[in-house]
Amino acid sequence: MPDSKNTSSRSFEWPVRVYIEDTDMGGVVYYANYLKFFERARTEWLRSLGVTQQLLADDFSLIFVVSHMSVDYIVPARLDDELRLTVEVERVGRASVHFAQHAWRHETLLASAKIQIVAVSLSQMRPVGIPSNILARMKGISLRK
Amino acid sequence: MPDSKNTSSRSFEWPVRVYIEDTDMGGVVYYANYLKFFERARTEWLRSLGVTQQLLADDFSLIFVVSHMSVDYIVPARLDDELRLTVEVERVGRASVHFAQHAWRHETLLASAKIQIVAVSLSQMRPVGIPSNILARMKGISLRK
Amino acid sequence: MPDSKNTSSRSFEWPVRVYIEDTDMGGVVYYANYLKFFERARTEWLRSLGVTQQLLADDFSLIFVVSHMSVDYIVPARLDDELRLTVEVERVGRASVHFAQHAWRHETLLASAKIQIVAVSLSQMRPVGIPSNILARMKGISLRK
Amino acid sequence: MPDSKNTSSRSFEWPVRVYIEDTDMGGVVYYANYLKFFERARTEWLRSLGVTQQLLADDFSLIFVVSHMSVDYIVPARLDDELRLTVEVERVGRASVHFAQHAWRHETLLASAKIQIVAVSLSQMRPVGIPSNILARMKGISLRK
Repeated sequence: MPDSKNTSSRSFEWPVRVYIEDTDMGGVVYYANYLKFFERARTEWLRSLGVTQQLLADDFSLIFVVSHMSVDYIVPARLDDELRLTVEVERVGRASVHFAQHAWRHETLLASAKIQIVAVSLSQMRPVGIPSNILARMKGISLRK
Repeated sequence: MPDSKNTSSRSFEWPVRVYIEDTDMGGVVYYANYLKFFERARTEWLRSLGVTQQLLADDFSLIFVVSHMSVDYIVPARLDDELRLTVEVERVGRASVHFAQHAWRHETLLASAKIQIVAVSLSQMRPVGIPSNILARMKGISLRK
Repeated sequence: MPDSKNTSSRSFEWPVRVYIEDTDMGGVVYYANYLKFFERARTEWLRSLGVTQQLLADDFSLIFVVSHMSVDYIVPARLDDELRLTVEVERVGRASVHFAQHAWRHETLLASAKIQIVAVSLSQMRPVGIPSNILARMKGISLRK
Repeated sequence: MPDSKNTSSRSFEWPVRVYIEDTDMGGVVYYANYLKFFERARTEWLRSLGVTQQLLADDFSLIFVVSHMSVDYIVPARLDDELRLTVEVERVGRASVHFAQHAWRHETLLASAKIQIVAVSLSQMRPVGIPSNILARMKGISLRK
């Protein structure tokens, strides 16, 4: 999906299958469950950078929490759908990351989201700076050559 | 709870207790689960107007779906917390309703949301006008004297 | 509900309302979600004994985990249903408690469960003895006169 | 995984990754969420037979519901774990299927379940016979040559 050099390390996509657990009585995916899908994609994007939430907790005593999000629901997803969840980094701050995320079924855009996460200390749940080597990876400057 | 005449039919609050099912490994309520709490409050607000989702489905073949939402997460909720979820109607359109919703723990604001729902036909999931007597109730003009 | 003296402190019930979040595309409550309802009832039963999970974690560094359960699903619950979840203590061991739990809609039995929980240390997730004053309360010998 | 001829079409496994959505404040997978994992595996097993729940609903107006289950929780699953969920058919009746299912992390057994599903009519939620060609596939007699 990512074509240009600039976005090459900032774009990412992850497949998600819709199961019964995700649906509601309307026969479509329950609106809160898209947030699970979006987070799975962000988690896998982090993992693709060599970073796991467990590592962040163990090595840096920090955890990422969502501080803001907005979602537009466009077309409902249904049972058995194979979705593609995308992750684009829009801005990386000292303690926060801003994402644009989308849920696609083939070429149909189902949902579009802006999500902002903040690094907080596990002990106090206060914002803390993201460790510099992780910041660097998020900004797309690979440290692993 | 509502004091002034203007807001008397547009303000509503609903208590929610936090259980283990709502938490995640961070020890706080998982970010998607606030959307369940917000919806419980909207459902109870509708019920307080004499409207249930089952009635809407059975009598009008319509269902409300969320078309847009934005949430600011301010302070995390924790196990055993007793939250108050508020519902304020900001605007009622032909087929849509705009809400402001808040999650409180005593006098602490935990999360603040804007949520827009749309009435859609059960058969086609296309927007349809909200039945006029339900619109009237939502606008706070009681038909039941 | 409790009739006899013996069970008076071992029987407990808790109301649960069914919301959209609980349903699936079959129009009924998703099978895993009954376990949330059962746990809410157990949590409230503990609270009625003056015990919260937070207190157990803070004061005794222990947490209760489910080690075994079996559930019979008899009649499905639906949106807007008002359920009654019951908790009966069948046996209290050194580190474990055996419950019989039921989900009712009026006089209709919807689901019947046997659930066994074990006290484990937060640090090692190994079974530990339930503190004696909590054991006593669970056995129905009130310490608060 | 399946070695012998007899079980070759009755054994199946499916990978599941643990995300934050699956955990609770104990830092482990919430007990109800294993049932989602087990169902994902059963759904994929059905799909491997060429059967989807949507097809069952559309072509036969039937849906599978869980009528009984029992689960032993042995070792807790944690964030980032890669689980293997297995599906073994123990018995196929006219309207029901009995499964043994297990959750593994590498060679460690985390949870063991017996699950019984029943085919019911979508309209009345009453047990109905499983269509014979689907029964045949479930019994491991492939109809697709």
